[in-house]
Amino acid sequence: MGEEGVKMKRAVVLLSGGLDSATTAYMARAEGFQLYALTFLYEQRHDREVESAKRIADELGVEEHKLLTIPLEEIGHSSLFKNRGKIPENTEIGKKIPSTYVPARNIILLSFAVSYAESIDAEVVFIGANAVDYSGYPDCRPEFYEAFQKACDLGTKRGVEGRPVILRRPLIELSKAEIISKAKELQVPLRYTWSCYKGEDRACGTCESCRLRLKGFAEAGIEDPIEYTTNR
Amino acid sequence: MGEEGVKMKRAVVLLSGGLDSATTAYMARAEGFQLYALTFLYEQRHDREVESAKRIADELGVEEHKLLTIPLEEIGHSSLFKNRGKIPENTEIGKKIPSTYVPARNIILLSFAVSYAESIDAEVVFIGANAVDYSGYPDCRPEFYEAFQKACDLGTKRGVEGRPVILRRPLIELSKAEIISKAKELQVPLRYTWSCYKGEDRACGTCESCRLRLKGFAEAGIEDPIEYTTNR
Repeated sequence: MGEEGVKMKRAVVLLSGGLDSATTAYMARAEGFQLYALTFLYEQRHDREVESAKRIADELGVEEHKLLTIPLEEIGHSSLFKNRGKIPENTEIGKKIPSTYVPARNIILLSFAVSYAESIDAEVVFIGANAVDYSGYPDCRPEFYEAFQKACDLGTKRGVEGRPVILRRPLIELSKAEIISKAKELQVPLRYTWSCYKGEDRACGTCESCRLRLKGFAEAGIEDPIEYTTNR
Repeated sequence: MGEEGVKMKRAVVLLSGGLDSATTAYMARAEGFQLYALTFLYEQRHDREVESAKRIADELGVEEHKLLTIPLEEIGHSSLFKNRGKIPENTEIGKKIPSTYVPARNIILLSFAVSYAESIDAEVVFIGANAVDYSGYPDCRPEFYEAFQKACDLGTKRGVEGRPVILRRPLIELSKAEIISKAKELQVPLRYTWSCYKGEDRACGTCESCRLRLKGFAEAGIEDPIEYTTNR
């Protein structure tokens, strides 16, 4: 990809191993970016998503894949951490911020991504945030990203030099069904993606993340290639 | 401190072990906040500042002191990291962003502080950033803090609930001499503070951080209680 002698544009992609971030990464590649993937380990209950991230990064043929361990669970509370309460099941989605909210998580992850982008001189940071079929996390909303962009414009060397790292969130206004259709079109290896918060052998099918995923596949009329514990 | 039966307000304080953050922490205590200190290990060359932070936290009698290891050096470049080039000496201060700049460092540290504040229900995050006698780091300027505050207002649960974590940077417009006078007044144990970027047995006296410190003490007419390698 890219003409010979032309330096390819670089992008940092936040790659959790889930459906949204994988699709975002494939979209970035389709635009011709050279990819630098960033995945975080933070004692998340579903750390098997990290194995998914590795597989997807391999399939994508990224330039570099950084796995960073960050101490979120040392300062925060969330039912998403190992041994910290129960993952809610079959709750009403989007009514209130759920217990799986990790305080300021996307702010922290984006900060690392911007730092990485500055270091490797990447033009763009891609994040698979989505504010349509989502759990109501405040750090998934467009207005947050606009404000964070402004903070980066003002708080980084690149910003001061007049070529700030650009934050892109191409899924922000897509429904889960639209994301899945996009993924299919771009040949994202959906069988490798992991969404379930519980992180057991098979996806539970009842946590918010599984339910949003299942609803999306159903609406898109595409079969979800992963296995679930529950009979559906 | 605090009347009986009245719940004390909590504050997270970013405590590097340097002069500015120590003074900030004493200012927060003087206002009656219960303190939760946060110190970061990131392969900084001068990690002896962390020992300073511990001593200062002890003196202050903080409620909790968290030491967090974060992988900045895995993604970034800075002469402030161990084995990464040379710390500049006797350069003109403030002319350009120096090689000691760590990409997006304050954005990252603040993000963790906001996460911690949400978790322990602290009202405020204090940071000792200063934009007068400083090295020209973009993430020390007031306009950055205003933008970051906005991002937190929009991107956190607390913000959505209408009681965002408030970011305070009480030193932002003080000269180093004014900070040192303030420190003296509040009986900050200046002998424990560490500023030198080199992190050797004694402060070098020639790096930007030492020179800003020495200039501040000279202008304040106060003797710096720490030892320097150079004859001054």
